[in-house]
Amino acid sequence: MSPSTVRRQWEVASSSTAQNTHNPIRSIVENLRLEPNPEKPMIALSIGDPTVFGNLKPPVEVIDAVQECLTSFRYNGYAPSTGYQEARDAVAQYSSEGVTVNPQDVVLCSGCSCALDLCITVLANAGQNILVPRPGFSIYRTLAEGLGIQVKFYNLRPECGWEVDTAHLEEQIDASTAALVVNNPSNPCGSVYSRQHLQEILRVAQAKFVPIIADEIYEHMVFPGQTFHSLASVSEDVPILSCSGLTKRFLVPGWRMGWIIIHDRHGIFEESGVRVGLQRLSQRIIGSNTLIQGALAGILTRTPQKFFEDTVNTLQCHAKIAYEMLSMVKGLTPVMPSGAMYMMVCVNMAQFPEFQSELHFVEQMVTEESVFCLPSKCFDYPNYIRLVLTVPEEQLREACQRIADFCERHHSHSPNTNAHARISDKLTNYSTAHALITVKEDGIRP
Amino acid sequence: MSPSTVRRQWEVASSSTAQNTHNPIRSIVENLRLEPNPEKPMIALSIGDPTVFGNLKPPVEVIDAVQECLTSFRYNGYAPSTGYQEARDAVAQYSSEGVTVNPQDVVLCSGCSCALDLCITVLANAGQNILVPRPGFSIYRTLAEGLGIQVKFYNLRPECGWEVDTAHLEEQIDASTAALVVNNPSNPCGSVYSRQHLQEILRVAQAKFVPIIADEIYEHMVFPGQTFHSLASVSEDVPILSCSGLTKRFLVPGWRMGWIIIHDRHGIFEESGVRVGLQRLSQRIIGSNTLIQGALAGILTRTPQKFFEDTVNTLQCHAKIAYEMLSMVKGLTPVMPSGAMYMMVCVNMAQFPEFQSELHFVEQMVTEESVFCLPSKCFDYPNYIRLVLTVPEEQLREACQRIADFCERHHSHSPNTNAHARISDKLTNYSTAHALITVKEDGIRP
Repeated sequence: MSPSTVRRQWEVASSSTAQNTHNPIRSIVENLRLEPNPEKPMIALSIGDPTVFGNLKPPVEVIDAVQECLTSFRYNGYAPSTGYQEARDAVAQYSSEGVTVNPQDVVLCSGCSCALDLCITVLANAGQNILVPRPGFSIYRTLAEGLGIQVKFYNLRPECGWEVDTAHLEEQIDASTAALVVNNPSNPCGSVYSRQHLQEILRVAQAKFVPIIADEIYEHMVFPGQTFHSLASVSEDVPILSCSGLTKRFLVPGWRMGWIIIHDRHGIFEESGVRVGLQRLSQRIIGSNTLIQGALAGILTRTPQKFFEDTVNTLQCHAKIAYEMLSMVKGLTPVMPSGAMYMMVCVNMAQFPEFQSELHFVEQMVTEESVFCLPSKCFDYPNYIRLVLTVPEEQLREACQRIADFCERHHSHSPNTNAHARISDKLTNYSTAHALITVKEDGIRP
Repeated sequence: MSPSTVRRQWEVASSSTAQNTHNPIRSIVENLRLEPNPEKPMIALSIGDPTVFGNLKPPVEVIDAVQECLTSFRYNGYAPSTGYQEARDAVAQYSSEGVTVNPQDVVLCSGCSCALDLCITVLANAGQNILVPRPGFSIYRTLAEGLGIQVKFYNLRPECGWEVDTAHLEEQIDASTAALVVNNPSNPCGSVYSRQHLQEILRVAQAKFVPIIADEIYEHMVFPGQTFHSLASVSEDVPILSCSGLTKRFLVPGWRMGWIIIHDRHGIFEESGVRVGLQRLSQRIIGSNTLIQGALAGILTRTPQKFFEDTVNTLQCHAKIAYEMLSMVKGLTPVMPSGAMYMMVCVNMAQFPEFQSELHFVEQMVTEESVFCLPSKCFDYPNYIRLVLTVPEEQLREACQRIADFCERHHSHSPNTNAHARISDKLTNYSTAHALITVKEDGIRP
């Protein structure tokens, strides 16, 4: 159809960006048959929102800081698209641990997803690729593929605490590789990388001249005895865009307060236009909510250390419970996390021959036990299930017990493998199943 | 460089999206020499943020609604990326005036800029074009050109209250036209279109089968005696994506609460994937701040009518003051607005022969009078200046008086045209000039 041709009917089409922006988790979950056992209350170990069970709340200091801004009438107008100066100052100070961050290196964003969106958009063109971990969080794919940017996977090694297989990583890099995404601490793995391992990753990036997008939204959420090292604190040579925010650590994901920290090295981001590019891109939606921006300095400085300690102690306690309970289950191999709020559990599919994949395993566990874990296919990985550790302890214990019962029934070495009749396929508790999907489908950080 | 080639040095480049995302106003203002007269306090009539002078504040009901959400601890988690159901319900009800809006037609966004971004992104591919008004607000260009979408202008007619030149509009449409942007009430014109004129626009869209993006962020901000008609209320045939939000009417632009309303007709948006496309695109940044979402129903229903009336009465009063004062000035022709918060004033450049353009005129007015208005080049239009009407009355009068003095001095028919020595070009009040730019440059809705 040439430009001069006149339309004779409606020919509206959605754009390729819209068509290619795709949340894999949503598709996978929508295609599962999730019909819980009506005799057992549903326990969703699938939702990566720490606030959803009501047991984890932001501290009162955080609420007070926002309240002060709200009643001051000083934070209702437009902020600069990269954020108020005082808010950027506060983030720079908060993030200057082992590395110097200047306020002009900080770009406030509408949540960490927006931060990642800006970083991927500024570094890569359609036709280029970015490297992402496998298993890994699906938002990198959602953001990149929507823009026509290819995603290439590098493997993590479950047997080594989900460290990066650096040889495999190096093999994936080609001349079209625009960026390497490193997620530490990790969703879905709960891994926390040592300083030494981060150096190994950085060596590859430096050798191949690939800038890094560091998704550090779980920064500092590490269990006692573990240490979080920001990627930028380990190297002075590799240009890094670090993404973080209030979301997880301060237990306010809905507030949409994230940020990018530009760790330029040798002026590489300056000269390439990446720094000004981030500023330009931030103008598309003009930044994040000003009440939260106004409160940011208070939030970052006044929150007591005990609040953070309580959160990670709870998470570690839950991790230990789940690990101990599931280690005893034949056919399952949980991997103890070191941080974040997830645990990956390997399902030895050979020992559950009636299930074609972990997807089927997960479906049937909902049907029989009303326990829902995300299948690892959501993270482009086979044969694992991911548990969220933020559920209240009692529910977590109950869920693990039900998982154990389920595995006991279906394990091929169990005398009862074939004795148990499957609970009717015809359960039609659609409303519960639908609620489950609804909670998950629209939030992209499950 | 083939994909297999290995890099031998850093070759980081910013993406074409980053390079092409460009705020024309920022560039124009940055290139002006803005050095105020140190003997006169600066009055910026340039900033489209109604909160910036402190005279216009959101009502207490709005603050209370947010406060309740904040202290309830119920609105800290992720919301669905298109918004909480109850918030979408509230927007649907609020927007059902002369047209039925269902909650599933509502997509909450992080401000109206984000709403426009989603609408342009979902409807147009790189290489296509969208039609935008001239003079018009520059964000359409910023958003479209960043994505490689061309912008084509259709003319407005100042002599007819800035109505659309529908013949010119029709000429601009070609087979690559993905959408028509209509801004009513208008920035920068302050125009409010009659029902009949909206029908004329819709007739063109229908005849040429072009869907509409209706930027109605100034909806209901019309002066007494005027009536706002939403575009969707005037036609049942043309598919329309309407964009609005709390920003202007509720005087909280920084809160970033906007929305899209999908007015599908004959299933055109459904079948074309536009509806699901908006849902997919909303997942990129996972929606807007949940505290404001939680408060939205209260904000939209509890705000007293008197608050809205007070705001528009103030705006109309200011418009009349400016109109009366500037109508008396030789060489200026103000166009009385009917709504929104701006006034366009024609500068008869032939009567100011010492200035090459309205840019030069604006610069010199800052130099001599410390009054800054946006030159119409910011809106892709020559020979006008735009005044913001939200400044306090006293400052507005003072500013208009200074504009009058300035014009009197420089008007070619004035006996004093050449008698007044120009105030030194060498004034170097950079800090004031810089502050002026800073306030403006990062906010994209000036």
